[in-house]
Amino acid sequence: LQEIPKHVQENQRLYQLSKAGKLCVPAMNVNDSVTKQKFDNLYCCRESILDGLKRTTDMMFGGKQVVVCGYGEVGKGCCAALKAMGSIVYVTEIDPICALQACMDGFRLVKLNEVIRQVDIVITCTGNKNVVTREHLDRMKNGCIVCNMGHSNTEIDVASLRTPELTWERVRSQVDHVIWPDGKRIVLLAEGRLLNLSCSTVPTFVLSITATTQALALIELYNAPEGRYKQDVYLLPKKMDEYVASLHLPTFDAHLTELSDEQAKYLGLNKNGPFKPNYYSLPRLPPEEG
Amino acid sequence: LQEIPKHVQENQRLYQLSKAGKLCVPAMNVNDSVTKQKFDNLYCCRESILDGLKRTTDMMFGGKQVVVCGYGEVGKGCCAALKAMGSIVYVTEIDPICALQACMDGFRLVKLNEVIRQVDIVITCTGNKNVVTREHLDRMKNGCIVCNMGHSNTEIDVASLRTPELTWERVRSQVDHVIWPDGKRIVLLAEGRLLNLSCSTVPTFVLSITATTQALALIELYNAPEGRYKQDVYLLPKKMDEYVASLHLPTFDAHLTELSDEQAKYLGLNKNGPFKPNYYSLPRLPPEEG
Amino acid sequence: LQEIPKHVQENQRLYQLSKAGKLCVPAMNVNDSVTKQKFDNLYCCRESILDGLKRTTDMMFGGKQVVVCGYGEVGKGCCAALKAMGSIVYVTEIDPICALQACMDGFRLVKLNEVIRQVDIVITCTGNKNVVTREHLDRMKNGCIVCNMGHSNTEIDVASLRTPELTWERVRSQVDHVIWPDGKRIVLLAEGRLLNLSCSTVPTFVLSITATTQALALIELYNAPEGRYKQDVYLLPKKMDEYVASLHLPTFDAHLTELSDEQAKYLGLNKNGPFKPNYYSLPRLPPEEG
Amino acid sequence: LQEIPKHVQENQRLYQLSKAGKLCVPAMNVNDSVTKQKFDNLYCCRESILDGLKRTTDMMFGGKQVVVCGYGEVGKGCCAALKAMGSIVYVTEIDPICALQACMDGFRLVKLNEVIRQVDIVITCTGNKNVVTREHLDRMKNGCIVCNMGHSNTEIDVASLRTPELTWERVRSQVDHVIWPDGKRIVLLAEGRLLNLSCSTVPTFVLSITATTQALALIELYNAPEGRYKQDVYLLPKKMDEYVASLHLPTFDAHLTELSDEQAKYLGLNKNGPFKPNYYSLPRLPPEEG
Repeated sequence: LQEIPKHVQENQRLYQLSKAGKLCVPAMNVNDSVTKQKFDNLYCCRESILDGLKRTTDMMFGGKQVVVCGYGEVGKGCCAALKAMGSIVYVTEIDPICALQACMDGFRLVKLNEVIRQVDIVITCTGNKNVVTREHLDRMKNGCIVCNMGHSNTEIDVASLRTPELTWERVRSQVDHVIWPDGKRIVLLAEGRLLNLSCSTVPTFVLSITATTQALALIELYNAPEGRYKQDVYLLPKKMDEYVASLHLPTFDAHLTELSDEQAKYLGLNKNGPFKPNYYSLPRLPPEEG
Repeated sequence: LQEIPKHVQENQRLYQLSKAGKLCVPAMNVNDSVTKQKFDNLYCCRESILDGLKRTTDMMFGGKQVVVCGYGEVGKGCCAALKAMGSIVYVTEIDPICALQACMDGFRLVKLNEVIRQVDIVITCTGNKNVVTREHLDRMKNGCIVCNMGHSNTEIDVASLRTPELTWERVRSQVDHVIWPDGKRIVLLAEGRLLNLSCSTVPTFVLSITATTQALALIELYNAPEGRYKQDVYLLPKKMDEYVASLHLPTFDAHLTELSDEQAKYLGLNKNGPFKPNYYSLPRLPPEEG
Repeated sequence: LQEIPKHVQENQRLYQLSKAGKLCVPAMNVNDSVTKQKFDNLYCCRESILDGLKRTTDMMFGGKQVVVCGYGEVGKGCCAALKAMGSIVYVTEIDPICALQACMDGFRLVKLNEVIRQVDIVITCTGNKNVVTREHLDRMKNGCIVCNMGHSNTEIDVASLRTPELTWERVRSQVDHVIWPDGKRIVLLAEGRLLNLSCSTVPTFVLSITATTQALALIELYNAPEGRYKQDVYLLPKKMDEYVASLHLPTFDAHLTELSDEQAKYLGLNKNGPFKPNYYSLPRLPPEEG
Repeated sequence: LQEIPKHVQENQRLYQLSKAGKLCVPAMNVNDSVTKQKFDNLYCCRESILDGLKRTTDMMFGGKQVVVCGYGEVGKGCCAALKAMGSIVYVTEIDPICALQACMDGFRLVKLNEVIRQVDIVITCTGNKNVVTREHLDRMKNGCIVCNMGHSNTEIDVASLRTPELTWERVRSQVDHVIWPDGKRIVLLAEGRLLNLSCSTVPTFVLSITATTQALALIELYNAPEGRYKQDVYLLPKKMDEYVASLHLPTFDAHLTELSDEQAKYLGLNKNGPFKPNYYSLPRLPPEEG
């Protein structure tokens, strides 16, 4: 039996059940709706990376050298925030498209080994496992801060630090000093679990978006005419994704422009949306190619 | 017979032929590959909006009030560049999801009418028609610069300015002063055609990406085994999209990280990609819903 | 007897004693050294404004409308941070030079009354008194956050809120809701005292700079030959200001360039500094003109 | 007779005449007024570095590695602009205070030799001579762009490139390829003269500020009562510096706040300014210490 990695369990369990013909009700994958993705990842992490680091370490961001592993939405948020605060940010990536984006956004794309000796902070946001290994940890400089903003607690090989020659010292809640025999200290946050959940807060605005998305999905499934949804997994219809966004615009006193009849006809759009096709979304399913 | 709008003609002609059963060869929609989209739109326009405005008007960006119509990739690029140069930027949008992104990126979302009297520059990037009407033009202040970064020359209603009471004065190549009876002058760039093509240059780097994408698509169609592609329209396979990106990384001395066997297995990925599924792209087809 | 305003007391007491002939030892005004000014104000506040707001309110910065009163070093730091986090920032100023800088940095310069009804956050950093009056507070919208980053607790007229018709509710440490008869709530932080000291932390790096500056000043006064310093107030010699900075560069693994003999001669500089004249500093003495 | 370096000639000739007792009329050093400094240097260069590079080379800024020599106002402007456009920027400095500012603003502080092999662009803004030597030029990579934004044409040792083994090829106005025997090409802009003056334009707004400053200085000297100014060099009175700024605020529809009587008294200020003391300026005289 194939082991299912955790991050796939979270996102993809439904797809696997469906594929196996074991899904007994229609399901909606709200996690991959655009609105939720952007807010839970890009915009929320842009703020919580700063908040999580400050509350745990009281460090100054200006001038610090930071490496961010992974340049997806979470990584983009972390990088943007730290760059804005005066940090010097390096990025690692496996996907050449994300890598090229990191370049165009002004970050040096490196392998972790190239900068591991010089950085003050290591942040993982890959969804992968063992991105930061014991070997990396051995090479970090004294005082280096290590934390995880990704999708699981597997990104930093924390288990490798639970060996007799290393001493752990809890300096405050969520903050451990791991001490090498030569006195070097690594500052490990939240024992490698998610920094944004463990050491920061999630703004009510983000929670509102998530809850609205889930509620609308349930209402849609409940109200849908017989036969619209089968025992399968569906993305949130684009129109509902847009509706979630429109419900949150008044918070910002934001005024949406309406299409004229002539413009709607020219664009081939309904004046009330959807304004993008259903598949204009960012699903992160395991690829079926190659 | 339904009139086909210009921007749909450009992007979607192939889809329409396919739908009508008139496409007699397989075709590849390279325009919607991620790499091409990001470079032709976001990254290229972020630079060419500044370049196009400088070369035509020698204006200073700092302190200027600007309204950008449309917050897609092009609009995002224009807004980011002008904000960074010290302009105060307002955004108009019809799509609530893009609108919410504009808010989170720090731009006030307004209707054009709310700011038209006060802005120094109006930039369209909607793909729509008559976004800037004669009524808007009548209300702009003296010296206001009007230009188009969108997908066609229809966004500004330039025809409405060719009336007897308005005087046109060509002050230099690509720059017209349109003069109202009371002496008010509007600075119209490129007669409403694309500023980035008419008044700026396209870096060779961007051309290289576009040309590579097209060449790879042709090679794929030519080499594909019988039956892989039918008489339909296909997106560039994700793996090729990634290959285009990887070919351009050495320019930046960028070092990609490789997955270990263990990591590839954990993620359920081939070590050589693709790293995202095929439908992780940003197609802009006319919606089929609603 | 003229009342001495608080912020002048802090900074200028020594100058007043000197002027009155009552200073009985030499004194050094370390507060106005460039290094200390930049770090205590610009760079430190750039981070502590975000930290102070997050720890007290858990708010999201993206999309929020903020007015910052005062565009000195502290105001510049606050504005830069909030803009980077996606807030829409307005600035008020009395000094036209600072005002023009705010414009060039991309902030709309307004009078407080123009935006008071629409903003989500009001931040004072003027060094002045009663910048936010009861009248302003009456007009703010429900949920508006009010706080002070300036030089004293006088900027917000907190006393005016201690009237019978308003209810105060302490929602957590340093956070009060002031409730109007119609139910409107204003979120007042630290009772109008300094947010950065009350609700944020000061990084050790900033403390190190301050302490080093003070220590060097004392050493200089102690070691100086008879007669170099009279019973007056002196600015920290430029060379020492530079020395404080140079002592902190290794933290960032920063490598300073050394002048060649030829270059030093060309510039008319000593190779070891000072690199700027003594009066290249930013004293904030009461003006003697007009 | 001591040779007077060029940049000192420009700025300091008057001071030298004064010191030598040879100045036969009062003079005003308008160059060091705050308004002029900030606009001619920081804000103007922030835009002209991009403009000058685009018009000459059509390069893309995103992802490029750039080294900026000197982090004064000009260097700060260049660095901010290129960082915003997605370049990776390194800084060299001789002054530890400016160096520390570069760190806090997110730039790696290096010696030129450390990065000379890897950068795509070299920009000088030091006011010094021979900052870029033949040795540096020999080590640059093929295609590297070299230009000067500083105070003279001495920063790049262009003379060292006029040797028989190197071929010069003028590829367009202001752009020379210098070709090494192995085929390597360096792109030299404006033959090492000022890029912002040779290859960019100066916005009318900046010219207006400069002209206003000069005109006000002449009016002041003409109208001053007998004896106010002796045969010496004076800085522009703070009040006039502020007046120049206030005359340019309406361009931005910027609304200045006025002090109340109570506030003016509290601050010890005249309601009409000056708001900062006279010596709150940034003179760049040769230091008299050390």
